[in-house]
Amino acid sequence: MSLILAQIIAELPAELRGNDQTKITRLAALEDADGQSLSFLAQPKYLAQMQSTQAGCVIVSPAYADSAAARGACIITPEPYLYFAKVTQLWKRSHARPAVDAQAHIHSSAIVSPQAHIHPSARIGALCVIEAGASIGADTILKARVTLSEDCHVGARCIVHSGVVIGADGFGFAMRSDGSGEKIEQLGAVRIGDDVEIGANTCIDRGALSDTQIADGVKIDNLVQIGHNVRIGAHTAIAGCVGIAGSATVGAYCFLGGGAIVLGHLIVADRVNISAASVVTRSIAKSGQYSGVFPLDDNASWEKNAATLRQLYRLRERIKILERSRT
Amino acid sequence: MSLILAQIIAELPAELRGNDQTKITRLAALEDADGQSLSFLAQPKYLAQMQSTQAGCVIVSPAYADSAAARGACIITPEPYLYFAKVTQLWKRSHARPAVDAQAHIHSSAIVSPQAHIHPSARIGALCVIEAGASIGADTILKARVTLSEDCHVGARCIVHSGVVIGADGFGFAMRSDGSGEKIEQLGAVRIGDDVEIGANTCIDRGALSDTQIADGVKIDNLVQIGHNVRIGAHTAIAGCVGIAGSATVGAYCFLGGGAIVLGHLIVADRVNISAASVVTRSIAKSGQYSGVFPLDDNASWEKNAATLRQLYRLRERIKILERSRT
Amino acid sequence: MSLILAQIIAELPAELRGNDQTKITRLAALEDADGQSLSFLAQPKYLAQMQSTQAGCVIVSPAYADSAAARGACIITPEPYLYFAKVTQLWKRSHARPAVDAQAHIHSSAIVSPQAHIHPSARIGALCVIEAGASIGADTILKARVTLSEDCHVGARCIVHSGVVIGADGFGFAMRSDGSGEKIEQLGAVRIGDDVEIGANTCIDRGALSDTQIADGVKIDNLVQIGHNVRIGAHTAIAGCVGIAGSATVGAYCFLGGGAIVLGHLIVADRVNISAASVVTRSIAKSGQYSGVFPLDDNASWEKNAATLRQLYRLRERIKILERSRT
Repeated sequence: MSLILAQIIAELPAELRGNDQTKITRLAALEDADGQSLSFLAQPKYLAQMQSTQAGCVIVSPAYADSAAARGACIITPEPYLYFAKVTQLWKRSHARPAVDAQAHIHSSAIVSPQAHIHPSARIGALCVIEAGASIGADTILKARVTLSEDCHVGARCIVHSGVVIGADGFGFAMRSDGSGEKIEQLGAVRIGDDVEIGANTCIDRGALSDTQIADGVKIDNLVQIGHNVRIGAHTAIAGCVGIAGSATVGAYCFLGGGAIVLGHLIVADRVNISAASVVTRSIAKSGQYSGVFPLDDNASWEKNAATLRQLYRLRERIKILERSRT
Repeated sequence: MSLILAQIIAELPAELRGNDQTKITRLAALEDADGQSLSFLAQPKYLAQMQSTQAGCVIVSPAYADSAAARGACIITPEPYLYFAKVTQLWKRSHARPAVDAQAHIHSSAIVSPQAHIHPSARIGALCVIEAGASIGADTILKARVTLSEDCHVGARCIVHSGVVIGADGFGFAMRSDGSGEKIEQLGAVRIGDDVEIGANTCIDRGALSDTQIADGVKIDNLVQIGHNVRIGAHTAIAGCVGIAGSATVGAYCFLGGGAIVLGHLIVADRVNISAASVVTRSIAKSGQYSGVFPLDDNASWEKNAATLRQLYRLRERIKILERSRT
Repeated sequence: MSLILAQIIAELPAELRGNDQTKITRLAALEDADGQSLSFLAQPKYLAQMQSTQAGCVIVSPAYADSAAARGACIITPEPYLYFAKVTQLWKRSHARPAVDAQAHIHSSAIVSPQAHIHPSARIGALCVIEAGASIGADTILKARVTLSEDCHVGARCIVHSGVVIGADGFGFAMRSDGSGEKIEQLGAVRIGDDVEIGANTCIDRGALSDTQIADGVKIDNLVQIGHNVRIGAHTAIAGCVGIAGSATVGAYCFLGGGAIVLGHLIVADRVNISAASVVTRSIAKSGQYSGVFPLDDNASWEKNAATLRQLYRLRERIKILERSRT
């Protein structure tokens, strides 16, 4: 597997300094690179690593062009990390295995309802289940073992990873007088926009009355739970193990860190960044970074502090008394 | 898709005020309703919404009958939300697609052991795996891609959503002297009662020596982990992303909020309500609401408070000194 | 299903006191045992239970041999719990159902690429998907419905439970100037060592440039998320619902409690023990037990303390003022 720099530049135009016949056999981080590696400088803090890297070529922004050229070949582009992302795509395209059945856009083992609507350019992996009324847009890829339930829609150019379940029933019950639960049938569906990626074993529930909605460009990692009636705004990214409870609305361009929990019926504004493992217990109206994590400590210190925490309110009262007695 | 009010009342007897020929084309929340929508007033706090809704008909309790009738048709019933739940079921029954293969109760793609015992009225979805010795009760539905492992039992009228794994091995190892783990074979199974619902991609492990037990009427949301030997009491509800470690016992009529964690070997009494994302670190003997979540804050405030939290025990000591010096 | 003690001793040599013709029909904990049960004393704190157990035979260490023999048959071995683990394995081997198709090591419903490399002694369960370039070592078992993606490797004697996804794309995007994400193709794979066990519906993502690596003897529970480029050291155990973010390195012989989160790019040393539901927000260089969990409390107390926690930094300032005014 290799490309020469000239091939890369031909596909992804940018200024190259150095020998365009340099052979690239792998893409690598600066510290892992060898003489046949293409690497990148995405953040100034890695400048020293760039200067000492063994990489055959480094992708840099104009500000670092001279510094990079001093050590070897470099590709100069305003956004090195974005350029690098496109190189990974080129690399994958150039080195993909010839498909065993390149014509088959729907794997023969998939169970597809005759009442589903699948764009001819979409690809459905092995052992997927596509139920009646479901629809899938152009160039979307469902990897193996995905469930797309009745009447749910996935847009164009989406990637849905293995084990995803779209359109299971939301968690809705009316309590009977004896404390047992009467099922509320979930009559809505799921609507997913274009350019959405959904990680392995993630679940997106169908709406109770109207549809659960995932807007264009949303990126969702693995093992994420999205409850019924949730709405996620465009280009929001959701890291692994996040849970978003029913009827919550998350704005556009948000980031939810891994393991974060958003309670039901809350509204989170656009461009809100929730730190990993934080719990959103109230609506957030203002863009910004929000956190709420108990700091990690050695166990003995944690035990002392956690025990004291259970008296914190009383400690405040004691401080008040001290303050009063001082005056 | 539509029903007239007379049809609804015929199926679900209740007092109707207004024109029983009113056509209902959808079920909707009060604020989303239009003139052909049936809606409901479940809580008094939505009274103003009820008075201004566009709904063609509203389900209300007797206390709000006059107020509802003043604006249009209404159905009067002691428990409006419960009645609404039954309407969702009627709606689904009335509008279900004619099944392509209504006779086939076991999808042809399911892999079912000849040594499994499946009630003739149960339905097994596409690409399920039912192993030897497993049994499934009357009218239970397994959606697509469910695994039911050897000797595990699911009762009657259960719904098991896509991707669920029942009866994988519990996490049990004996440590060898070199620190590596010797597998403890999990010789128990899983016993699930009647009227249980299990959400997508949830896992319930088989017991080590005896069975993991889920009692009647338990409702479990998506991506929940239930360890080996756990016992869940009747009609307990477990929201998404909950983890219950091995050998924990949770009582009846409990509610575990989303993302909550219950440590192993603990005992939680009946009618205990655990707030979302809280960690149950000790047994709970008394019914009530329990919480333990770090409050969300803007990141700068959180950082200051979290840093101080790591000195909390020492702060308490300083308060003690101040108190002593005052006297 | 039964074995006599003589059969057990023949397979797993150890000193037996008592009648070697005693029939054992089940393995059981001390408090659940009956006269035909084999039980074990793993920890001294259960000594009283051992003395009063109904078990037909108890596995004990030499220190408790006399005490055990005073009440009935006993097996004496330096590590009773390890011996018991081996008895569970013997029990399972002795009582396994005759396989319907003992010859078939790859279930006929599995979708296996002709370009995959599967050791002849490995077993592939129903409805698994094994992609091109994937490889599986000797005596490894994939239960039903496992996905092993392109070029990923699972070593020898591993057990991979139902619903596991190995080798889905890591969560990697470069941000475009408009805030949308450009996919970074994940060009690495996953390499899993020997004697690894992976729980149901767990996900292990493929690396971005190099491989995600799980060393020999690692034990992973259900619904665990392991991000791209993560490295887990040998014999580390990871409980259910843990999330390990991209490029984190966890040492050998660690234990991560259920629901713990490890942030990206951190390094955790060998023999670190993270308490359940704790969040690892910084690298840990030193072996030990670490915790960070908000203590559970009744909801009213929690509310007061949590509200005060948001003023904790200011409380510290007030204490400082009091201290200054005292002098």
